[in-house]
Amino acid sequence: MAERNRRVVLAERPTGRVDEKTTRLEEADAPEPGEGEALLRNRYLSIDPTIRTWMDDREGYLPPIGIGEVVRSGGVAEVVRSNSDRFAPGDLVFGMTGWQDYALADDGANYAQVLPEGVDPAAALSVFGTTGMTAYFGLLEVGRMEEGDTVVISGAAGATGSTVGQIARIKGASRVVGIAGSEEKCAWGVAELGFDAAINYKTEDVAERLREECPDGIDLFFDNVGGEILDAALGRLALRGRIVLCGAIAAYNEDGPPRGPANYVNLISRRGRMEGFIILDFIPRFPEAQAQMAAWIAEGKIKYATHVVEGLENAPDALNLLFTGGNTGKVIVKVA
Amino acid sequence: MAERNRRVVLAERPTGRVDEKTTRLEEADAPEPGEGEALLRNRYLSIDPTIRTWMDDREGYLPPIGIGEVVRSGGVAEVVRSNSDRFAPGDLVFGMTGWQDYALADDGANYAQVLPEGVDPAAALSVFGTTGMTAYFGLLEVGRMEEGDTVVISGAAGATGSTVGQIARIKGASRVVGIAGSEEKCAWGVAELGFDAAINYKTEDVAERLREECPDGIDLFFDNVGGEILDAALGRLALRGRIVLCGAIAAYNEDGPPRGPANYVNLISRRGRMEGFIILDFIPRFPEAQAQMAAWIAEGKIKYATHVVEGLENAPDALNLLFTGGNTGKVIVKVA
Repeated sequence: MAERNRRVVLAERPTGRVDEKTTRLEEADAPEPGEGEALLRNRYLSIDPTIRTWMDDREGYLPPIGIGEVVRSGGVAEVVRSNSDRFAPGDLVFGMTGWQDYALADDGANYAQVLPEGVDPAAALSVFGTTGMTAYFGLLEVGRMEEGDTVVISGAAGATGSTVGQIARIKGASRVVGIAGSEEKCAWGVAELGFDAAINYKTEDVAERLREECPDGIDLFFDNVGGEILDAALGRLALRGRIVLCGAIAAYNEDGPPRGPANYVNLISRRGRMEGFIILDFIPRFPEAQAQMAAWIAEGKIKYATHVVEGLENAPDALNLLFTGGNTGKVIVKVA
Repeated sequence: MAERNRRVVLAERPTGRVDEKTTRLEEADAPEPGEGEALLRNRYLSIDPTIRTWMDDREGYLPPIGIGEVVRSGGVAEVVRSNSDRFAPGDLVFGMTGWQDYALADDGANYAQVLPEGVDPAAALSVFGTTGMTAYFGLLEVGRMEEGDTVVISGAAGATGSTVGQIARIKGASRVVGIAGSEEKCAWGVAELGFDAAINYKTEDVAERLREECPDGIDLFFDNVGGEILDAALGRLALRGRIVLCGAIAAYNEDGPPRGPANYVNLISRRGRMEGFIILDFIPRFPEAQAQMAAWIAEGKIKYATHVVEGLENAPDALNLLFTGGNTGKVIVKVA
């Protein structure tokens, strides 16, 4: 008995934002699980800026999505049938399920992780998922945040940025300043997430505001955006300041080469460090961070917001939200 | 008996290269050494790109040179008279003597260091001076070079770059590739310094040549230049590649903001690190590096070239040589 499987496949590589020609909705029979495999029914998809980078025909940390292939994506799915000891029908698992109704999981170690009892699927995709892990390891391991640091975050109302700011607060940052794209997001950061200040990059001069809000310079800048905002932060870097490069969403939809940060020369006089990372490298250490996040959530120290988009067919629009700034918190597609 | 002291002072801040209006040659009585001080007669001046950055009215790792002040510079000088136990007449010392005939040294720890017997003054300003120390600590400490690394150097025929390449060779780099601005410099790098290859950035496509010469990517890029060359190296970065930012001479004479490296985004997918440093931070560790350099020189493993310009009054032209590429190796002014 094969279920029918709707799949959103890459029809052509986008230039700029994803549009109606970029993807195509197809239908086919769902695959039958073989020995050691399980059939999964997708419940929620994790919509992350990095998906846009996989659509380009460019060498990256994972191969580009092929034309005609299902769009790669994390998701939370329910086990329908299983020929594996790892999965039982009804289990909720997190894995790279893709933009489709059904996916296969196998016994490969990293593919799919069964969620502990009682974990909210939305939380599994945000604070306990790659988003929360990115915030945790990016700030503490790559950025080596120390007590007393002035921490500045771009994309601060996004899923990762909002978590970074709260962890920085917990870990004793002297100042936490968020940069976001609307008054509403800025107000949310200050009122709900405990930021000391927030800068609206659409209406304010970021360089000038950073001078005001970071009188002793920026010890740690967590960058999700790139472009002019990164340049402004480099211009305000403190001695031995660190820049954690998590993403560059300002560049992901650019056709030509993005603008490079001219103020990188400050890394010399300030003895600064700018370092990039990919969260997949930290997978073996996820459990320690997930335990810590669970404790902080239980203590009410970490809040998370989700922006739910209904329907698999709307996944492309959900992806664009990340670049138009239409979301506050984690964007999730509810598949069914 | 006061000697007459010729001094090259900053007359006005340059825009672009130093010209005849930038500095002024003055004459005044040499200062009299007080208690704990010594009068020094400059013999050689160390001409370094960083001097140009001190002429700008810009926050840096040292304060800008004031208008009317002697141009700041390292130098090797001879003790004329001394009221200090640290200095005896006839001693050769290295210190920040400035562009002038006479300077004072005092008992302050870092100001002036007496040269060991038999050290060639030119070597004191190059391989044993901040130039050699910059190469040593930049490559090994900031860049954490490892055996088997593919190492690329910009400004590779300059005083620092040529030393970096040779240390990389000694330390077991699998490939050493230099980038320089003439056929002659490139040939010198390959024939005399042991580079595997050299790229002439004035006549060749640097990005394309880096693809050819670094088939496995660049593990360590030691950058003296910045601009498009840095961008090309970022485009060819290997996984966990490191970029050591030593200087940005392409930008020092720019009036507007320099071009930023758009390929910085590769630091994310390659998990790369770009870090700046200032050699003054390593002063306490100079002795260990100087001992190592002395051993390598004795074994014939490190060669150094000096480009001597005659006459204090020609120091401004000597500085410009660094930016026109008119030198191979360390530029030194012979004062008297």
